[in-house]
Amino acid sequence: MPRITIMDIAREAGVSKTAVSLALNDKPGVSEGTRQRVREIAGRLEWRPHYAARALSSSSTGAFGLALARSAETLGAETFFMSLFAGIERRLAELDRALLLQLVDDVEHETALLGRWAGEQRVDGVILLDLRVDDPRIDALPRLGVPLAASAPEPLGRGISTLVTDERGRMRLLVEHLLERGHRRLTFLTGPGEFLHVAHRIMSFTTCVREADGLARIRETDYSVGAAEAVAREIAALPRAQRPTAVVVDNDLLAVRLMVALSRVGLDVPGDLAVAAMEDSLLCTLTDPPVTALGRDLSRHGAQLVDLLERGIGGAPEDSAADPSTIRERASTALTSEETTTGR
Amino acid sequence: MPRITIMDIAREAGVSKTAVSLALNDKPGVSEGTRQRVREIAGRLEWRPHYAARALSSSSTGAFGLALARSAETLGAETFFMSLFAGIERRLAELDRALLLQLVDDVEHETALLGRWAGEQRVDGVILLDLRVDDPRIDALPRLGVPLAASAPEPLGRGISTLVTDERGRMRLLVEHLLERGHRRLTFLTGPGEFLHVAHRIMSFTTCVREADGLARIRETDYSVGAAEAVAREIAALPRAQRPTAVVVDNDLLAVRLMVALSRVGLDVPGDLAVAAMEDSLLCTLTDPPVTALGRDLSRHGAQLVDLLERGIGGAPEDSAADPSTIRERASTALTSEETTTGR
Repeated sequence: MPRITIMDIAREAGVSKTAVSLALNDKPGVSEGTRQRVREIAGRLEWRPHYAARALSSSSTGAFGLALARSAETLGAETFFMSLFAGIERRLAELDRALLLQLVDDVEHETALLGRWAGEQRVDGVILLDLRVDDPRIDALPRLGVPLAASAPEPLGRGISTLVTDERGRMRLLVEHLLERGHRRLTFLTGPGEFLHVAHRIMSFTTCVREADGLARIRETDYSVGAAEAVAREIAALPRAQRPTAVVVDNDLLAVRLMVALSRVGLDVPGDLAVAAMEDSLLCTLTDPPVTALGRDLSRHGAQLVDLLERGIGGAPEDSAADPSTIRERASTALTSEETTTGR
Repeated sequence: MPRITIMDIAREAGVSKTAVSLALNDKPGVSEGTRQRVREIAGRLEWRPHYAARALSSSSTGAFGLALARSAETLGAETFFMSLFAGIERRLAELDRALLLQLVDDVEHETALLGRWAGEQRVDGVILLDLRVDDPRIDALPRLGVPLAASAPEPLGRGISTLVTDERGRMRLLVEHLLERGHRRLTFLTGPGEFLHVAHRIMSFTTCVREADGLARIRETDYSVGAAEAVAREIAALPRAQRPTAVVVDNDLLAVRLMVALSRVGLDVPGDLAVAAMEDSLLCTLTDPPVTALGRDLSRHGAQLVDLLERGIGGAPEDSAADPSTIRERASTALTSEETTTGR
């Protein structure tokens, strides 16, 4: 006979798993009627609490913590974070866990805040995102005594479980797509170079383009509309023989902003130059022409991060490789005339 | 002489406000060196704690709660929630507050979860979104004894502070825009009718169209790609004389999905029919043609909701009107031929 779970009781009582859990643990939040009905059903089905789950729940805060040193504007506009966040939230909901979330000014503020949360036992674990080059959190956080899980382009060590994204390999995919189409003068429009993933992407971009005897330029931006417009004007002002024939853009939002800015200064994509983005989203399919982009399942990435953290409770830290990306080829990198693609 | 605040200490010490606060309150999360430096500066500047702030902080959990009965997929794709969320998070960061967030299965689960959070004193207040028609939370939650603030199309009473969005007036704006262009057969593509804001929009849509002797149809959807495709096929299958000449869409994402689906079945916007969305976002500007939409500052809306909740701590509940929306006219509702616009 299969084990009776609170799911079985919830189904029979016609209430949620949480309501059953509250009723059986004698906690507030359900009506007296529901409490009695749930207990009657639990008794009739001969339900017994799962000891391990019970032991876990008694010492658990029921929440993971996440502090983000990002502006609210970036958060609202960037589809990367939202897709990742959706995956994190879905997996947390399955585990009946909440997320304690706060936006902070900087990494120092984040370190202090996470210290407070850990000290007050408000979280069972912490998720780290947006790792920096020489990130101060890597030294400070392991001392907090709560499990840590990070998404980063290299294993972090120091007891931090890492979901490793191969940013160099991802960049290579996109650059080779452009090299195959004859491009040799390439520009990479990045976010702030202090981010570890941006640093990995810059290294890989430069290496790949130079291996093909191409000219690699890096242009750092803050992802804003203003930055996209400035870059479009800079490119338009160059003599044709010095212009990049292809631009790799760090994310989908900046790519879309660049597309709009390029059309305003009279540059044709892909006729005058090709554009490709490091993150795909609905946005990339809606521009004219649609933008070639690297696709990955960010929702799954978020869920894997939660699983890594969950396993870190009572277990050893571990590293895991994120799923590979695939290239989604669209019209923004289509072959046009011989002149454009050989960069003459 | 102006009062010395922790901001002054933070500036002089070159650390964040949070670090100063941790150092002065003797909490973990800052180094011993920082703690001593901060105390030395505080002593030298003759800083004294703000008594009211201190009294508040001692009884405070530092977090507001938000439980959302939505799928993670909707959360990741819908720009409405993300913009609102960005505003909530920005204001919370200014108040040095965190958000305790959990996705739940349904409103019953939400009610139980919020009960648990309030009972365990994990939150200082609760934000309510997505109010339903006859919402069970309105009866159950005021008994929890924590301040509540909701975004809803009507004042909720029962001690719940409400930021009131005039959904009927918003719908009237959009329908009158279409009526002025000669449309008389209009369809409203809605989300689930159990949502209070959807119910208000349906009532207003029907009233406004009938006042102009028009034909109002309601088509309920789940916002999915599949729903958009089904609607496009249904419209294409109708004889031209029975087709709606204008479609009002409940949000930007569904509007964009409808635009793609309409072009696939060979219907021209605005030639065959006009399309207008109840929420604006970057998405609406990227389709071909771009979509006319109602714009509002959702980030500000989120911040106002937090302020309402903050004032509800120790204060009386209050209602407040959300900022009005404006119509952003784009090519999807441009006038075309006489035949289309008179609906013959």
